Amino acid sequence: MNKTIGIFGGGQLGRMMAQAALPLNIQCTFFDVSTDCPSAALGTVISSKTENGLQDFIASADVFSLEFENTPLSDVDVLTKQKDMHPPRQALAIAQHRLSEKALFDALEIPVAPYKAVDSLESLSAAVAELGLPIVLKTATGGYDGKGQFVLRSEQQIEQAWAELGPAGSLIAESFVTFSREVSIIAVRGQNGDVKTWPLAENHHHHGILSHSIVPAPNSADLQPVAQDYITRLLNHLNYVGVLTLELFVTDKGLYANEMAPRVHNSGHWSIEGAVCSQFENHIRAVAGLPLGSTEVVRPTVMINIIGQYPQSEQVLALEGVHLHLYNKEEREGRKIGHLTLMPNDTAQLTTLCRQLAKILPNPLALSEDMTI
Amino acid sequence: MNKTIGIFGGGQLGRMMAQAALPLNIQCTFFDVSTDCPSAALGTVISSKTENGLQDFIASADVFSLEFENTPLSDVDVLTKQKDMHPPRQALAIAQHRLSEKALFDALEIPVAPYKAVDSLESLSAAVAELGLPIVLKTATGGYDGKGQFVLRSEQQIEQAWAELGPAGSLIAESFVTFSREVSIIAVRGQNGDVKTWPLAENHHHHGILSHSIVPAPNSADLQPVAQDYITRLLNHLNYVGVLTLELFVTDKGLYANEMAPRVHNSGHWSIEGAVCSQFENHIRAVAGLPLGSTEVVRPTVMINIIGQYPQSEQVLALEGVHLHLYNKEEREGRKIGHLTLMPNDTAQLTTLCRQLAKILPNPLALSEDMTI
Repeated sequence: MNKTIGIFGGGQLGRMMAQAALPLNIQCTFFDVSTDCPSAALGTVISSKTENGLQDFIASADVFSLEFENTPLSDVDVLTKQKDMHPPRQALAIAQHRLSEKALFDALEIPVAPYKAVDSLESLSAAVAELGLPIVLKTATGGYDGKGQFVLRSEQQIEQAWAELGPAGSLIAESFVTFSREVSIIAVRGQNGDVKTWPLAENHHHHGILSHSIVPAPNSADLQPVAQDYITRLLNHLNYVGVLTLELFVTDKGLYANEMAPRVHNSGHWSIEGAVCSQFENHIRAVAGLPLGSTEVVRPTVMINIIGQYPQSEQVLALEGVHLHLYNKEEREGRKIGHLTLMPNDTAQLTTLCRQLAKILPNPLALSEDMTI
Repeated sequence: MNKTIGIFGGGQLGRMMAQAALPLNIQCTFFDVSTDCPSAALGTVISSKTENGLQDFIASADVFSLEFENTPLSDVDVLTKQKDMHPPRQALAIAQHRLSEKALFDALEIPVAPYKAVDSLESLSAAVAELGLPIVLKTATGGYDGKGQFVLRSEQQIEQAWAELGPAGSLIAESFVTFSREVSIIAVRGQNGDVKTWPLAENHHHHGILSHSIVPAPNSADLQPVAQDYITRLLNHLNYVGVLTLELFVTDKGLYANEMAPRVHNSGHWSIEGAVCSQFENHIRAVAGLPLGSTEVVRPTVMINIIGQYPQSEQVLALEGVHLHLYNKEEREGRKIGHLTLMPNDTAQLTTLCRQLAKILPNPLALSEDMTI
């Protein structure tokens, strides 16, 4: 074996991929703006800021992947003339462009909220007339965690919205969807076409940032096969290799696709302890051409993000069944710097642990002392 | 947090300790004859062959531990004048000397097979007269995997045995114990005196090398509290901090202690996937002064050693619920170069997996195609 996998990006996702790769004797290298990134503890980081950086990176590994969704397609094009990358370039290109993404969902008959492409003040007015209000206007490319978005609640805001986002050129106007909850499905496809899917995660956000994921999503027996079908369509259509994530809204008309991420995902971090084979290990296995591992749940679990400020390790680890994952990042407001996975021996304990953590965490996000899982 | 732990030795045990330390933002450094050892992927290795090596190692970390049982006490003495080490020096000194070890077991009323100290041809003859035959003669220090031992089956062998092992000076003669099986108990003690114990492992050997461990050991409900009591006596008596292993024989007179190892142990590798908190993470937690994690079993499991030659990763990983751990060591006859942990969703599958692996592994050790777990 002894393959080396080169990864675009060197954040915590790369760090956790490399951790999963190590016991398989697979080494990782990383391509990042900072050589002091979270992945640096586990492999060589090649700076994307140096002149020969990309060529050095391409020379550093046998096969390539990514952990950074905004990996420049121009870099990928240089790479794929010389070596293989998984997932395929097309998946990345589509995920980087909201209109292409919606078009793919449409083509594969995966339901989405009504939307219209917008590229002028006139087409924005037309979209408002057709979709009704409120709508959310988004840039087709770029933007994350609520950035590059404008929520239109009245026709008086049309000009302001266009003034703000119009310079981006290509926009998308989406109807608001009334949903009861947000879930995500994560799946992996191997080089031989095998597909394995983890159970749905129910995701809770706080000011646009993922607070915690409950796995398996409660009362999701009916939703699981539908979500599994949708993500399998995407994987097979794209001839995808590696882990893919699909975020979905649960509405009274069923599941609506929100967006896809061509990579391992924050809502899948629970799988390190909670599944027989984690999203990280299965991604590495797929990229390396190895057989996929079981995605079965070992124990129902909750994953909680650590945002902005670290808790006292002593306090967190004193709680029975809590796993701590720190990313070796500087504290900064709104930044993902770690996560916790809860593995109590009794599912009822999940609520107790969440309530205890609501007291302990400097930033408890959507956790509260009277919550119930 | 951000503590650094310096570890005597840089083999696979150090590698797996450092893997467990990483998500806690704890860095490891290592002291080894080879800077190209299995732990090198995870932290700086300081060569024990250079003149200032020991001082550089002492300067490299905040607190110290070991993964190598034959760590020279003279090195530990230099270290502990400057910085703390867990486990305590005394535990290491005792484990390095079979007679001290037996004396400790005796003092703590932990049953052992009848033995006698031997330091001359006369005392060997006396031991044979007192203990009867067969006996096994061992050097008090050094020796592992059957080396430094002589099995005496007749009085005619006394002179030959003394000629072979006598030069070592201090020997121990042990009665043969008739045992039905070998088990080991692993426990961890925190800096606050908390003790947590993993369930007994049933260990199967092949030509003196551990082949596989079954956890929890079958039919061990009566044995578990006894073993737990013995190891707790040792931990508390030694004011021990970290992971300690006690190997035991199951005889018709109950459990007999064989030997202790003042470190994480091969028969505890299953705990990476099979326990809520692994022996490696709990050792790191203890050394770093953090609260201990749950030692509860997530799923019954079997750990299988990979000895001498690597299997095809593709073949092994194609089996559902198999985890592969490779140590990045060169293949060499009799050498531990990796292990497998089996985590099928149904315990009955453990037998099926073991039988399949008996076919696949280049060195199936004590596995066979008609075995039953």
